[in-house]
Amino acid sequence: MSLTYRIAILTDLVEIIEMLADDQLGRAREKLESPLPESYLQAFQLIAHDKQQELTVVEDEGELVATFQLSFLQYLTYQGGIRAQIEAVRVKSTYRGQGIGREIFQYAIQRAKTRGAHVLQLTTDKKRPEAKRFYESLGFVDSHEGMKLHFG
Amino acid sequence: MSLTYRIAILTDLVEIIEMLADDQLGRAREKLESPLPESYLQAFQLIAHDKQQELTVVEDEGELVATFQLSFLQYLTYQGGIRAQIEAVRVKSTYRGQGIGREIFQYAIQRAKTRGAHVLQLTTDKKRPEAKRFYESLGFVDSHEGMKLHFG
Repeated sequence: MSLTYRIAILTDLVEIIEMLADDQLGRAREKLESPLPESYLQAFQLIAHDKQQELTVVEDEGELVATFQLSFLQYLTYQGGIRAQIEAVRVKSTYRGQGIGREIFQYAIQRAKTRGAHVLQLTTDKKRPEAKRFYESLGFVDSHEGMKLHFG
Repeated sequence: MSLTYRIAILTDLVEIIEMLADDQLGRAREKLESPLPESYLQAFQLIAHDKQQELTVVEDEGELVATFQLSFLQYLTYQGGIRAQIEAVRVKSTYRGQGIGREIFQYAIQRAKTRGAHVLQLTTDKKRPEAKRFYESLGFVDSHEGMKLHFG
């Protein structure tokens, strides 16, 4: 398997939403209809026009096999440092268990360094201890609590 | 005390960096010199020109008493939802213990709702259990691990 990475374009959107909806948490959160709800298109356009966002798709021989979103957050802290943040990582269900997740993270780490970030960060649900072990195997440290305040 | 909130301007920068440098973690990370290192100015300009960032200062009777940075992150997940994220929160040392932190977070929650976010999130160092309790008292849930991979 030889994976290639590129920034997502509008014609990828349905397949990306299919991937986002295809897990236990995603099924409850997403709305996979045809045509796709307008809110996804609006969100896509905002992401695509934001230079600090890289909504990325991963292909294997022309087929979409995974997606993730990298954000580059400029702060004053760390002498004006940039934090890279990764979110919405999904591997297509038929492609799981083949090491694609690990390859994606190795790519994301390199990409974060190329963009001048001093850290790559993410939060992972405590209900998924196997995910935490996966991130630790990549060098991530669980030094922080990830706290969320969801609005009603 | 009647706090007012506004977006930071360039002439606030030295005072903001003084606040960022004035704690145990900040002292090691920041470089408080006169003139201020160029990296802070460059970072400030990038933040100021990014509509998804709100570097905010808090004043009491014309004096700067606190700062924080709110980021609004557009994702496809949650049907094209926006996540608000708060970072780099500092209250000037002489103003601590007066409930300013709580007021700031109440403001940040309202601001996040106004910008259409569905969640306000942050990560807090596990070495600061009192900070975690403070966030819990505001309604935050420690549902996630905050994982960081710092580059060499």
